[in-house]
Parts: sequence; structure tokens; C-alpha cells
Amino acid sequence: MEKLTGKAIIAMGGGPTAVINQSLVGAVLQARQYSHITQFYGAFRGVEGLVEEQMVNLSEATSHNLEMVGKTPGAGIRSTRLKPDEEFCSRIFKVCKAHGIHYFFYIGGNDSAETCRIVNTFAREEGYEMRVLHIPKTIDNDLRVTDHCPGYGSAAKFVAQAFMGVNLDNRSLPGVYVGVVMGRHAGFLTAASVFARKYDDDGPHLIYVPEKPFSSDEFLASVDEMYTKYGRAIIAVSEGIQDEHGKPVIAGLVKEIERDAHGNIQLSGSTSLGDALTGLVREKLKIKRVRSDTFGYLQRSFLGCVSEVDAHEAREVGERAVQIAAWHSADGSITIERVGDYGVRYNLTPLQEVAKETKSMPDEFIQGANNVTTEFKNYARPLLGEIPVYDRIHAPRVEKILNP
Amino acid sequence: MEKLTGKAIIAMGGGPTAVINQSLVGAVLQARQYSHITQFYGAFRGVEGLVEEQMVNLSEATSHNLEMVGKTPGAGIRSTRLKPDEEFCSRIFKVCKAHGIHYFFYIGGNDSAETCRIVNTFAREEGYEMRVLHIPKTIDNDLRVTDHCPGYGSAAKFVAQAFMGVNLDNRSLPGVYVGVVMGRHAGFLTAASVFARKYDDDGPHLIYVPEKPFSSDEFLASVDEMYTKYGRAIIAVSEGIQDEHGKPVIAGLVKEIERDAHGNIQLSGSTSLGDALTGLVREKLKIKRVRSDTFGYLQRSFLGCVSEVDAHEAREVGERAVQIAAWHSADGSITIERVGDYGVRYNLTPLQEVAKETKSMPDEFIQGANNVTTEFKNYARPLLGEIPVYDRIHAPRVEKILNP
Repeated sequence: MEKLTGKAIIAMGGGPTAVINQSLVGAVLQARQYSHITQFYGAFRGVEGLVEEQMVNLSEATSHNLEMVGKTPGAGIRSTRLKPDEEFCSRIFKVCKAHGIHYFFYIGGNDSAETCRIVNTFAREEGYEMRVLHIPKTIDNDLRVTDHCPGYGSAAKFVAQAFMGVNLDNRSLPGVYVGVVMGRHAGFLTAASVFARKYDDDGPHLIYVPEKPFSSDEFLASVDEMYTKYGRAIIAVSEGIQDEHGKPVIAGLVKEIERDAHGNIQLSGSTSLGDALTGLVREKLKIKRVRSDTFGYLQRSFLGCVSEVDAHEAREVGERAVQIAAWHSADGSITIERVGDYGVRYNLTPLQEVAKETKSMPDEFIQGANNVTTEFKNYARPLLGEIPVYDRIHAPRVEKILNP
Repeated sequence: MEKLTGKAIIAMGGGPTAVINQSLVGAVLQARQYSHITQFYGAFRGVEGLVEEQMVNLSEATSHNLEMVGKTPGAGIRSTRLKPDEEFCSRIFKVCKAHGIHYFFYIGGNDSAETCRIVNTFAREEGYEMRVLHIPKTIDNDLRVTDHCPGYGSAAKFVAQAFMGVNLDNRSLPGVYVGVVMGRHAGFLTAASVFARKYDDDGPHLIYVPEKPFSSDEFLASVDEMYTKYGRAIIAVSEGIQDEHGKPVIAGLVKEIERDAHGNIQLSGSTSLGDALTGLVREKLKIKRVRSDTFGYLQRSFLGCVSEVDAHEAREVGERAVQIAAWHSADGSITIERVGDYGVRYNLTPLQEVAKETKSMPDEFIQGANNVTTEFKNYARPLLGEIPVYDRIHAPRVEKILNP
């Protein structure tokens, strides 16, 4: 096989993760082994910086520096939310050509895969030989074909550990607690809250994902049931939950609260789903201690909460992208295939199989309206890596003397 | 010295921390060495459960179970928000007497110290010999006399690591970010965000604590300055910030936004400080990407973010309380004295010195309206224990070809 000699560029798209830099470092360090990949550039701010020729030469980053960056959350060369159209992609292609770039690596989700697909088409049409490889990344875990996505495991670990702590905190001072987790269309991340349960009465007692229609009445009934049973209730909820008509719950809830209010409900006009749900519980169930947190950016960026499995896999998809590009005349997206219990194999899949559309949680992972199944636990457990353990006191009750 | 023979009880008051259980475990395991402490009870839900005689016999908890609980955040025997009055304290005393309890340990903040003080007075007045020891705990770090409070270091570590991650995330996709941290009157916890700064342009770029009056106009000017300078701005803010009249900022801000709105501002009626501040920035500075997170319960409960220094000290204050009670005929609150760089000595201080009133950040820890000093960093650094490190890529820019 004739080797393709030229420069390489890597870029990042979409929301960063705790391990996205591992993929970059895996790619760059791997490429240093190959003399036909002559230089390795990094585009600032994804394809946005690329068209402005804002690039750094990663061939001149030291290995230690790269290793340190690999352990660092966030997008080390910045990211972008831009979804390029054909015209924009032609500009990407022009910059690559001008700089003698023959290897294009894009770490991102389905939008980044789509960018890869268009750039790849341009290169082929122009007869410019260029390897275009998409490296998967997303905390939402919603890419097609691949078993799971680098970035998910670490975010899922954060969510699990957050709910473990929140469960213990709520057990200390009981009440109703709503934790809002990222995920507009896919519930994988919210579902990971299930790993917070150790004993039968541990929370989250209810888990709501966007894949199942949410009903306020059923929600209230379930919270009431849990609160009666346990004296407290912890609820994990995806930010993207929708009603039966596919309308975001937050929109409907705020309206409903306003209509019911007669001017005296604290939460009218509230902007957050957590506030809306706690407002509903306070108003309808007359429970006093009702709290909510939105986990926000912490769940994808917190320094010091990384799944070692996720970190290794993120590193490997970066390495594999470079290996495939260097030794095979093939373009595509790197996917993870699960083999055995638990192992993985990295494959190459056509870009159009991953681009544009996303996937949701399969039915067998969801139990009823507000729980997940053992199948989900078996699926997700190895991805989170090692999770710290906790325990409660096991000691006999003291017999009463004054009021036996 | 005559040894006081009898049972002991331990209770927890106020908001839990990541290491409050270490104090319980330190006390219980230490007491097992002493035959004159005949049994060690734990009160459920602080003094609330105590008056209902809801207690467990911790003498029958296994050592391994206790060690595991020590590593567990949250209040292992539950907590309470109740601030007992004289009548309630007399009931506490009655239960202790009925059960032959001669050692009373209460882990908590200034309110728990006040409970100890009243119970102690009752015991003395009734001529019932009872050692009453307050074991310090609070993430707010606002107890008097003691150099710092167990629970603070771990929460501070969480805040630091959260801002480290948020800084990296915001550097990936720039904008304005407001992180709201616990602390109604004392800014110690918010101030710990300073440890997220590694390079000169790292956030948080502005730190607001309740000790300094907050002005919306000056805030906007500072955000504008940082945004112009860095292309982004990260702000750490205490939930309790107040205006120059001592009024909570949240109250004033929401009003102001409503008044300015003419019905078209998204955030009128918002209930959170973070939403109010980001609304202000969006409205007045016309910046598009403005985000906010309220760290909420995660900062005091997250499983897997514990300062090892904090954990050891929490353990030791529990041990020291039992040692002093067992060998000295003295009551009081355990305090931490800082010696050398960095060591501690545990002392006993009268209960009334710690009860009721709290303390704020001293002036020398605060720099101007929105920063903290090197003195604060020197003070707080040893308390956080080891913090993970991160780095950014150091690589030369690539020269432009198309648009040089």
C-alpha cells in the first residue's frame, strides 16, 4: 500500500467532556510514530478556528505536557457549537489543501460526524486525497452504531456519585429532592443515577428519562407514594423530559403553575425544571422540605471524577483513528463494539451511519414510567469504572425507658 | 482522679458534611478503650430523636462497619435543624438521666454548641455529673475560637475542583459563567474557588463574598472588564451576598429586573441568585452565552471528594472529645489551633465561647470587592489536602498561509 504523506489536523466539536483530551493525546502521540504524518496541527475552536487558520502545531508539544492535558477535562484546543453547511465545509477543505493537510480528525458527536461527511465528500470530488476520521465523544451517549461513547462513563460516574451523596444528605435531613441531569433526548446519563442505590430504601426512588412521556399527575402520585413509604423521596430527572405530545415538560409546568396560582404561588415564571417540579410538589403534596439541584456543567467538567475505563477508551479511539488513517485508505467513524464481559473492539463505520441522527435508550433499559432495568445496569456498570463505596450504621436500637 | 462511670451518647446537628461521620467514628472507637464508658449510644435525628428515646447502641456496631461509615458523607445517625429551648433541653437531660448517660457528645455548629451549653447548665444545676462536649463541624467554617472547622476542607476542595472544571469547560466554549456557592454570612467556602486558578487568565476572575457589600453596577463593570480582557468571565459568588444596606442581593435584583422589564425580560420572577445575575449580565451587557450553576447539595455531600487532612482532623476532634471527657472533669468545645506550617493542636474551650455567634472572613483575607488575598490562600491551602492538577497545551501557533 502506498503511504499518504502529509500533515494532520485535529479539531473538537460540541460540548467538552472529562476525557475528550485523551482522544487528542492518543491521536497525537500515536501519529508521532509515523514519518508519513509529517506534522500534527490542532485547530482552535473546532472548524471555526480552522477556517480562520487558527492552529497550533501539536508536533511541538512535549509528551509530558500532552499527558497532563490528557488528564484534564474540557476541550484542550477549545471547541465550537457551529454546524457547518456545504459552503463552510468548502472553506475547511481549502485551508486543509493550502496547508498540505491530508489527515483530518474531528472529535465530536453526530454534528461533527456530519461535518466529516461533507468535508470527505469535497475532498473526493476534488480528487484531493485526504483521510477523514470521526472520533466519537459525547456525555449523552447517543451516537448510533457504537455501543457507547467516550465521555459518557465519566459523566455517568459523576451523576452516580452525586446521587450517592445526595441520598446520604437527604437521609440525614429528610425531604423531597429533585436532581436535574443533562440529556435533552437520551436518558442514559440520568439513568446512571441508579448506581447510587445500595440498600432498598436508598434513592433515587424515581428516575425520569426523556424516552417516556412524563405526566405531572402520575409524578405527584409516585412522589407521594415514595414519601409515604420512606419519609423522603429522591428523584432523578432528565432536563429533556417531555409530555405525551412531545412538548418539553418545563414549558407546560410553568404555565400550569401560573394558571393554578391565583397570584400566590412562589414559583410562577420560574425558569428551571427543578424549581418547577419542586414547586409542584410543595403546592400539591404540601410537603415542606422540597429541594432541587441542577447538576449543570459540573457533571461534564468536574476535575477529579473520571472513569478509568472511559479514559482508556477515549485514548484508544484517538489512537485507532490515527492507526486506521495511517495504514488503511479508509474514512469513517471509530465505533466501540462490546465483546465478552467486559471487553471492547474498535471498528470503523461509514460517516453517514453516525452523522445527523442520534439514538435513544432502548426499551429494555427502561422500567415503567420512572425506573431503569437490570439490563441497563449490566450495560452501564463497566463504563463507570471504580466507584467509591459507602455504608450505613448497623447497630441495634436501644430500648425505651421513659416511653416504652 | 475518680473516673466517671456511665453510658455515652452522641448526636449530630445541622447540615451534614463529607466528614461528619469521621468524628462519630473517632469518638465511638476511642471510647471502646475505656471500661468506664460502659455503652455508647447514638441519637437518631440529633436531639429530636434523643427526646423520643430513639437511639441505637453503637457499642454493637462492628469496627469495619464504623470504618466504612467514617468514609461516608452525610450524617450517619441523621441530623436535625431544631434549635432547642430551655424546656426542650430539660427533656434531653431527663432522657440522659433515665438511661444512665453521663457523657454527652454533640457534633455540630454554633447552634449545637448552644444546646450543649444549656444541657450542661441543667446537669450542673441538678447535681447530675455529666460531661458535655461539643465536637465542631460546619462547611461554612464560621465557628469562633477554632482556627477552622472540620467539614470545611472537603467542601472547599469540592468548590475548588468544580471551578477548575468549570474554568476549563468555559475556556472550551467561552462565555460568562456564574457559580453560586453555599455561605449565607461567611465567604470562606466561596473564597476556596481561588484554588482553581493556575494560569493568569484562569477563572474564577471575580469572587464575591457576603462580607463585602455587593453593587450591581460595579459587578456589571467588572464582568465587562474581564470579558473584554479574556473573552470570557467566570464568577464565584456566595449565596448570601448582600447590598450596602445588608439586604440580600437576590431580593433587590429580582425586583430591579422586573422594574426594567416592560414585560419582556425572561428572568422576572426568577427564584435563584444565579438566574438573577445571569439575567442582569444578558440584559445590560448584551452578552449571549451566559450560564449559571448553583452547586447546591453536591458541595457538601458528593461521594469521592474528601480532603484527607479534613478527614483526619474530623476523626481526631471526635477522639479528643472522648479522651478529654474520659480523663478530665471538663466540659466544652474542641477547637483546632494551628501550629507551625502546617500542624494542629486540639484544645478545649468553654461552650459559651463557641455557642450562638459565628465569625466571618477577616479583612486580611479579602481583596477589594471581588477577590481574595494570598493570606487567605496560605490559610486555606493545607485544609484542602491534595488537589488534582491539570494543564493546557503549550504549542506554537501555525503561521497562516491563506490570510497571513
